[in-house]
Amino acid sequence: MPTEKPLILISNDDGIFSKGISSLVDFVSGLGEIVVVAPTLPQSGMGHAITIHEHIRLDVSKLLPGVEAYECSGTPVDCVKLAKHFILKDRKPDLILSGINHGSNSSVSVIYSGTMSAALEGAMEGIPSIGFSLCDYDHDADFEPCREFVRKIVISALKGGFPDHIALNVNFPKVKEGIKGMKVCRQAMARWKEEFENRKDPRGRDYFWLAGNFTNLDDGKDTDEAALANGYISIVPCHFDLTAYKALLSVEEMLK
Amino acid sequence: MPTEKPLILISNDDGIFSKGISSLVDFVSGLGEIVVVAPTLPQSGMGHAITIHEHIRLDVSKLLPGVEAYECSGTPVDCVKLAKHFILKDRKPDLILSGINHGSNSSVSVIYSGTMSAALEGAMEGIPSIGFSLCDYDHDADFEPCREFVRKIVISALKGGFPDHIALNVNFPKVKEGIKGMKVCRQAMARWKEEFENRKDPRGRDYFWLAGNFTNLDDGKDTDEAALANGYISIVPCHFDLTAYKALLSVEEMLK
Repeated sequence: MPTEKPLILISNDDGIFSKGISSLVDFVSGLGEIVVVAPTLPQSGMGHAITIHEHIRLDVSKLLPGVEAYECSGTPVDCVKLAKHFILKDRKPDLILSGINHGSNSSVSVIYSGTMSAALEGAMEGIPSIGFSLCDYDHDADFEPCREFVRKIVISALKGGFPDHIALNVNFPKVKEGIKGMKVCRQAMARWKEEFENRKDPRGRDYFWLAGNFTNLDDGKDTDEAALANGYISIVPCHFDLTAYKALLSVEEMLK
Repeated sequence: MPTEKPLILISNDDGIFSKGISSLVDFVSGLGEIVVVAPTLPQSGMGHAITIHEHIRLDVSKLLPGVEAYECSGTPVDCVKLAKHFILKDRKPDLILSGINHGSNSSVSVIYSGTMSAALEGAMEGIPSIGFSLCDYDHDADFEPCREFVRKIVISALKGGFPDHIALNVNFPKVKEGIKGMKVCRQAMARWKEEFENRKDPRGRDYFWLAGNFTNLDDGKDTDEAALANGYISIVPCHFDLTAYKALLSVEEMLK
């Protein structure tokens, strides 16, 4: 009996036409049977949004030649849900990959990230899941330096030992010279200082564009920001239990 | 010198016209200076989405008479960001409230919830923040049983002792008789079993509606689901550090 190939589901948030997802498909080719379900249009910053108030479309895509691919009108999380329910049906993926995102999803950006939310949705379903991001927002960014590390991480993940209900948040530094290696680390404490641009439309009415600046507030050496700043790939294991266990007692005390 | 009233910013995800937000405004009246910035249209299931690819509108709203209120075309998180940046400007709210949501946001639903994401955005900004939800999806749900508890929780929060960078996820049970009390608890492990409806449009093309079922997988007595099932209000302190600290070593091991 031939051994069945592992099933790898791939999604992203930049849209199925983006260079990041075609690079990812290329990098993992040969490591398993690949199925892509990705958004038709860019869905950056969609967080863990799901489509409730509108219907969703799902169509075969020819944008990734030689690969079974579908484009979905919904969010990255919708893509994972629809893939499981309508495309893979009874076949549970061995691995879900998301990305490679055009731009960083380190630190608190994980919360806003559609790329990482697709991976977290996989983790919620008990499927080993990894979100990849390159700290370069350019549409034509050079993903090639990520190739060997993406393959290494995916091969490791497929071998087993992936912790239950976890998604890895993998960020690649934008470096001109070689990447120094990989660091498993914690999410840095940081914030986006939101800076809006206020403009007037031709009828004199205000409108706003979001244009935030990232500010790292964490000088720990064990954070993803520190790893990236030093030329390493950051790998943060993420879970979806938001309970702040350390705050349970103080909240009880406060409510007395 | 008169003592300045605490500043309370209120948002939600069901939209500014919903009964849940007008109930919340009513319940906290007299406890501070209230400013409402809430979505123009329903934004349920929007998670921590922010509006990047489109501009945002912000208009004065007259839907909540006697209250300074604004409606925003964006997501709940956009509302909090715009409120801070353009409406309150240099005035930092003493408290951010979100809700009262029409429907549960307990357990893993916190991840998908626009209501809780508005509260978490407040926590990210270092502002004590609370999301309220009633386990009743009815547009005309009876929020009155929540009144005394909302006031009690808000009064406690304004007195101080609120843990740093935390948002409380408060869910009210739908009970015919009296609520038994409040329990501070952890997020239950559960999942949404996504069930889509596949329909054909008049041109014979497929479209899909998301229609999931919630399944509690956690028999712990210290969970939000257990509290709600027993007629208590569940209060989960939530943070935005997704790092799965317990998985750091096993991920290092896996990648060796």
